[in-house]
Amino acid sequence: MIKVSVIYANKPGVRFDYDYYRDKHLPLIKKRMGAALKYYTIDKGLSGGAPGTPAPFVGACHLLCDSLEAYQSAFGPHAEEISGDIRNFTDVTPFLQISEVVVENSAKG
Amino acid sequence: MIKVSVIYANKPGVRFDYDYYRDKHLPLIKKRMGAALKYYTIDKGLSGGAPGTPAPFVGACHLLCDSLEAYQSAFGPHAEEISGDIRNFTDVTPFLQISEVVVENSAKG
Repeated sequence: MIKVSVIYANKPGVRFDYDYYRDKHLPLIKKRMGAALKYYTIDKGLSGGAPGTPAPFVGACHLLCDSLEAYQSAFGPHAEEISGDIRNFTDVTPFLQISEVVVENSAKG
Repeated sequence: MIKVSVIYANKPGVRFDYDYYRDKHLPLIKKRMGAALKYYTIDKGLSGGAPGTPAPFVGACHLLCDSLEAYQSAFGPHAEEISGDIRNFTDVTPFLQISEVVVENSAKG
């Protein structure tokens, strides 16, 4: 299984509409990708490691797919539409990290 | 629920022993944190968003806890021991991102 992390770096005065991100943007991705998207997770940045320090990332989502090919064939045809929606909730251009999921959930063994 | 992401930035010639990370380091964290650690996940960086680009992060783990307080009280007393183990698998000093888990798993509704 692979994880495509879409990560929004934090900055002073950043604009990020978490409600839109959760209620509109991720459902759009889910709808367009269909069954190729096994599930997703959403993070809202709270802080860095030391109390009171800013979070490195204001927000992030993680898209779980069976393979990189499954992700690319499902996301690719809709990349323009999905990217075009980003301006509706933030002024940050995200960066991507593609990872192999070594442990998906340690509680599941 | 909160997520403590321990993130190792990538660099040319980076040293990272994924077997040790999975088989020794994370089990150590789990053992020391006990029930306060609900579960963890492990990512192995494969690439950036464009094919052939290096992954921003060589590796990462995400520690899921009920609250920041639960994390701090369980991790804090063992921070020195756990941090001291990092040199056994990598030459990277990680950074931390603490996030609120807005959506834990979209497939669970």
